[in-house]
Amino acid sequence: MDNSNFPQKFRIAIVGSGAVGCYYGGRLVQHGNDVRFLMRGDYDHVRRHGLDIRSHLGDFLLPEVQCYERTEDTGPCDLVIITLKSTSNQALLALLPPLLHANTLLLTLQNGLGNEAFLADHFGADRVLGGICYTCINRSAPGVIEHTAQGNITIGEYLKPLQPRTQRIADEFNRCRIECKAVDNLMTARWHKLVWNIPFNGLSIVGGCLDTERILADASLSALVKSLMEEVISAAGLLGHELPASLADQMIAQTRTIQPYKTSSLIDFMENREVELESIWGEPWRLARNAGASVGRMEMLYQLLKHQVALRDAGSP
Amino acid sequence: MDNSNFPQKFRIAIVGSGAVGCYYGGRLVQHGNDVRFLMRGDYDHVRRHGLDIRSHLGDFLLPEVQCYERTEDTGPCDLVIITLKSTSNQALLALLPPLLHANTLLLTLQNGLGNEAFLADHFGADRVLGGICYTCINRSAPGVIEHTAQGNITIGEYLKPLQPRTQRIADEFNRCRIECKAVDNLMTARWHKLVWNIPFNGLSIVGGCLDTERILADASLSALVKSLMEEVISAAGLLGHELPASLADQMIAQTRTIQPYKTSSLIDFMENREVELESIWGEPWRLARNAGASVGRMEMLYQLLKHQVALRDAGSP
Repeated sequence: MDNSNFPQKFRIAIVGSGAVGCYYGGRLVQHGNDVRFLMRGDYDHVRRHGLDIRSHLGDFLLPEVQCYERTEDTGPCDLVIITLKSTSNQALLALLPPLLHANTLLLTLQNGLGNEAFLADHFGADRVLGGICYTCINRSAPGVIEHTAQGNITIGEYLKPLQPRTQRIADEFNRCRIECKAVDNLMTARWHKLVWNIPFNGLSIVGGCLDTERILADASLSALVKSLMEEVISAAGLLGHELPASLADQMIAQTRTIQPYKTSSLIDFMENREVELESIWGEPWRLARNAGASVGRMEMLYQLLKHQVALRDAGSP
Repeated sequence: MDNSNFPQKFRIAIVGSGAVGCYYGGRLVQHGNDVRFLMRGDYDHVRRHGLDIRSHLGDFLLPEVQCYERTEDTGPCDLVIITLKSTSNQALLALLPPLLHANTLLLTLQNGLGNEAFLADHFGADRVLGGICYTCINRSAPGVIEHTAQGNITIGEYLKPLQPRTQRIADEFNRCRIECKAVDNLMTARWHKLVWNIPFNGLSIVGGCLDTERILADASLSALVKSLMEEVISAAGLLGHELPASLADQMIAQTRTIQPYKTSSLIDFMENREVELESIWGEPWRLARNAGASVGRMEMLYQLLKHQVALRDAGSP
């Protein structure tokens, strides 16, 4: 890819065509890219009706979308964007090989920590990039994606500073109306996102199925949002990812300005899907604890979430 | 009291005749003391039928019990045993004065921290003693008390080492089959009890209405019991109350040997009564935090409990 101009004859696969994959993949299609969606549940619907994307940045319809049920039928791609739930990473071991040629890049847009390492372990570190999506996107019906706020992505290399290829992907994303910033330190950006996800996604479940507005309306929970954010910022700093102390107040203030939002973890929880316990809470907590950070709140939240999910799966209220 | 032999002509008032007050007061009656119960809900029933105490240490019936609806009718007492819920402490300002003479002792058997200080502030520190009950006692019906495990009490002076009067009370309790130990440092004993109460009472509610057996059967919650216990032990140490590090494992092992037990806080929560949020969680957390202890788990638990109680009171599920 370093030797080609993006997007000439550039072929992109979306692995995990949920709301996030369909939205970003859809934007890339909308602006002329060859995008191939691996799709399961909505395959028949999208093949017949395409994608209906309702975005606060502008709605668009894609009547014809290249969908595949098996990656064996997709053929090798130059860029594989992974938007599968991180709880399904084991499935990538079978899904990805048919998509790979020698220079295929893997860009994981999955949540939390551990996904780049997983890809690097199995497919080689050199081809791995990661991206963090700051956005509110839900699938409201088969083939219908609701994009209600933000939408920007921060991308970076795994264990490497910015490369020319990273910047070229960012440039193409920006051309396709996906606001994208390429950064030198991907992991710092991941911790930055976790400062929001750990408290809000966690308390949205543990607090009793609450959206962002109800979390912030409750004095106890909003105090916890802040102290959890401060704990995560402090843990990130200890791990070498300096984040400004003002970030907590700033994120809380910004969250007050968005529409009441159900976190993706809450929706997963309520719809009886797997919750990304390890990538959002387990892995960050273990990394921080092993580095000697004081992360009692993160531990509490992780263990309470594991318990809540276990209760749900056992059929208790 | 220092000049008299307990229990000659010694008059005892029980303020707050719930399960704990009726059990210990009942034992004192059983062995010949003049005990006067301040009673509200069960007044009529107990006046007519007395107390029916079912104890693993031996059942007993007290067909006649001295009950009062107002402390004005009780008259001054030598020892006032306070077993009122700590959330009702403000009521003591009106309830206690009619019970007091110059040498009346106040013994609070209430849970957690802050109760001795409250009594000292309003009625003078010199007459204040505290006691910690290690026991499983519930009221199963009007006038019926179920005492299912343990039953011992540790008592001590407020801000003073052991006095002769403390030991005399302990001796009388022991004579009345209430196993009682008088100790030099009451607050250390209070923290010792909190090592159990903070995690078990808290997680019994936050975990979704669970008894001790179900808490310990869940891997996530039992990990939290242990790390919360360690956090409390460490905070207590910083506050000058040395507790052995082995206490956590020891308490967990002992809890596995008792019958599945619903904590008093869980019963309060389920029966829509006030939960002792401040004395069990709020006050210990604030004291520890102000001393510089790392008490993120205690903070999480306190704030989540406040939230759960607020949700309950708002009528949510």
